[in-house]
Amino acid sequence: MEKLREESLQMHKDNKGKLETSAKVAVRNPYELSLAYSPGVAEPCKEIAENKERVFDYTMKGNMVAVVSDGSAVLGLGDIGPEAALPVMEGKAVLFKSFAGVDAFPICLHTNEVDEIVNTVKLLEPTFGGINLEDISAPRCFEIEERLKKETNIPVFHDDQHGTAIVTLAGLVNALKLVDKKMEEIKVVVNGAGAAGIAIVKLLNQFGVSDIILCDSKGAIYEGRPYGMNSLKDSLSKITNRNNVEGTLEEAVEGTDVFIGVSVAGALTKEMVETMNKDAIIFAMANPVPEIMPEDAKSAGAKVIGTGRSDFPNQVNNVLAFPGIFRGALDVQATHINEEMKKAAVLAISSLISEKELSDAYVIPGPFDERVATVVAEAVIEAAKETGVARKADVASYIGV
Amino acid sequence: MEKLREESLQMHKDNKGKLETSAKVAVRNPYELSLAYSPGVAEPCKEIAENKERVFDYTMKGNMVAVVSDGSAVLGLGDIGPEAALPVMEGKAVLFKSFAGVDAFPICLHTNEVDEIVNTVKLLEPTFGGINLEDISAPRCFEIEERLKKETNIPVFHDDQHGTAIVTLAGLVNALKLVDKKMEEIKVVVNGAGAAGIAIVKLLNQFGVSDIILCDSKGAIYEGRPYGMNSLKDSLSKITNRNNVEGTLEEAVEGTDVFIGVSVAGALTKEMVETMNKDAIIFAMANPVPEIMPEDAKSAGAKVIGTGRSDFPNQVNNVLAFPGIFRGALDVQATHINEEMKKAAVLAISSLISEKELSDAYVIPGPFDERVATVVAEAVIEAAKETGVARKADVASYIGV
Repeated sequence: MEKLREESLQMHKDNKGKLETSAKVAVRNPYELSLAYSPGVAEPCKEIAENKERVFDYTMKGNMVAVVSDGSAVLGLGDIGPEAALPVMEGKAVLFKSFAGVDAFPICLHTNEVDEIVNTVKLLEPTFGGINLEDISAPRCFEIEERLKKETNIPVFHDDQHGTAIVTLAGLVNALKLVDKKMEEIKVVVNGAGAAGIAIVKLLNQFGVSDIILCDSKGAIYEGRPYGMNSLKDSLSKITNRNNVEGTLEEAVEGTDVFIGVSVAGALTKEMVETMNKDAIIFAMANPVPEIMPEDAKSAGAKVIGTGRSDFPNQVNNVLAFPGIFRGALDVQATHINEEMKKAAVLAISSLISEKELSDAYVIPGPFDERVATVVAEAVIEAAKETGVARKADVASYIGV
Repeated sequence: MEKLREESLQMHKDNKGKLETSAKVAVRNPYELSLAYSPGVAEPCKEIAENKERVFDYTMKGNMVAVVSDGSAVLGLGDIGPEAALPVMEGKAVLFKSFAGVDAFPICLHTNEVDEIVNTVKLLEPTFGGINLEDISAPRCFEIEERLKKETNIPVFHDDQHGTAIVTLAGLVNALKLVDKKMEEIKVVVNGAGAAGIAIVKLLNQFGVSDIILCDSKGAIYEGRPYGMNSLKDSLSKITNRNNVEGTLEEAVEGTDVFIGVSVAGALTKEMVETMNKDAIIFAMANPVPEIMPEDAKSAGAKVIGTGRSDFPNQVNNVLAFPGIFRGALDVQATHINEEMKKAAVLAISSLISEKELSDAYVIPGPFDERVATVVAEAVIEAAKETGVARKADVASYIGV
């Protein structure tokens, strides 16, 4: 770990960060200058002034995503502020570009106010083709995303919520094939009622899972729980926990098929796994130390285990989702990233592992599987067209450019 | 012109704009991913959380300039809005990078409100090492720049004002050598009381010119003029036009040594030039058609003529100033771009033409003179240090990187 620390600091220092802007056109002589700048640049300006939609034809907008954060919930570090969040947002932008040819730019905002964040992003809309919200703490992240979805005309996506949910669901789709269970039949416990947990519950719902108990640090969330509730948990309590189970995580887990943890190290014990149904599936995504170590879960009878870590099998890594999702959304100038597009991304990711390849240790493709971004983008494009959020039908993708 | 139009549109369309973001580090395998993103990225985050100034060591901030516009005064096109302004701002970013290795990113804002523009830029401050304001209409541009200079801790520079003023003054310094006149002795008319005209008046003052008449479309501006005034013209009337000359531009020009036009095509006639003093100096910068065509000015007795155009001698091109100025300011993490730094830039630009080389047709270096950005940066760095706005003494410039 000390070695990683040293090398990361050195790499960031040597390069003065990880992202730069680059010219796509040369300006080496008066003629090139007259094309890229005055007076030639007036021509695309006039075209766009006449019809604003042409900004997608003549500018970088159509391929440019803002990676927006206020630095309030960065990695496991918490509220470290916008300056300290910048390395993460630069890194995210690097991943966008490296994995799917999406240009992305960090926007680290010096405010935690919902209204200010929403207004600022709206004022920035002319420059960007999409908005990726990142590391903004709950519950503000929900309101910010909801408002921006309504009040802008470009795709808005909070990766901490939906990226994690999409990759988890992709893993679950494949894991269920292995254990021969169906979405409609399984009982699921989701531990952690933050951004990711709540998005996972919603996406499970979209996939037909109806028996879900959402737990927070105080145990099972049920309708009318007299402590530790908020408006979001209230509304989720209405679509989860249909038997109104009360009690601890330990009690909630008993007799379930799937445990999904987006909580804290060690939250799930071997004893708890032993009370789960046969062929239990566990996604233990606390970082860097998962809710239960894979070997412990295995020895307690679990069949499939995924974590957030690259050194164990089945890594739930958001990089499988967000690059391809934005690639697809940008390619058709989608106005939104809707539920159908997210579902399409789930199935595209899971589809990459054939029945023959599928195993306990391989329900999620690796982060460097080069097929991923393309199949996700293609699936997202189809879903966008079918649901009427694609502004453009003819697709000229930047992938591989 | 039709050819330029076609080629500019085609070039913008083929490249989908002119700017992209690029990764400075590779992410090709799990180890590189762990350095650039999770978990390694946490290390620079923690360092910056501990001491915010370290954001300059570990991120892109120290070399990243925001090119901010609301699209209200774009080229000669006027208020065409933020989307239509984007090609210009991308072009500007390309020039920053190409001429001085400065990373720059367009921020086209969907508002014309001074408060909103100021607040937004302040909220964006964590991401950027400098702010270049561009194509924001007067008089809002003055208030926006003044407030941002006070309310942020990074250099703020309105190029339409200061870039033009700096290059004009550089040309004037050299032209005066040719005609053997002194700043303290000359009489100057500045025609055009917009952003550039006002900045030119202020910078002339800095260089010791005390006899200046500023004209607008209604003629000479004098203290207490009962028409067409505003608070800015009021305050300028106190430092210009010391004899309180009233009347038209024609009347104002008579008996002066220098005409500086940032106004409209044809504003200056041959007859008016004939009334000027011997060895008149004329900067006629209306675009694309100057206040007077160089051949007409020449035949009417002018000695040195500069314009904004690349097809005439002595082009006043801002690209001689802003890249080197920001290069220097960023290299020493300057908190401001102050008057001394602007004056240093003027003298650096003019110094590139030796006494031997100096001629009527060569008082301003060409825009592709590769020495310019470096000497400007060096001069700006020295001035920043001397005036105490440099946060950093050891300079490792990006030029040539």
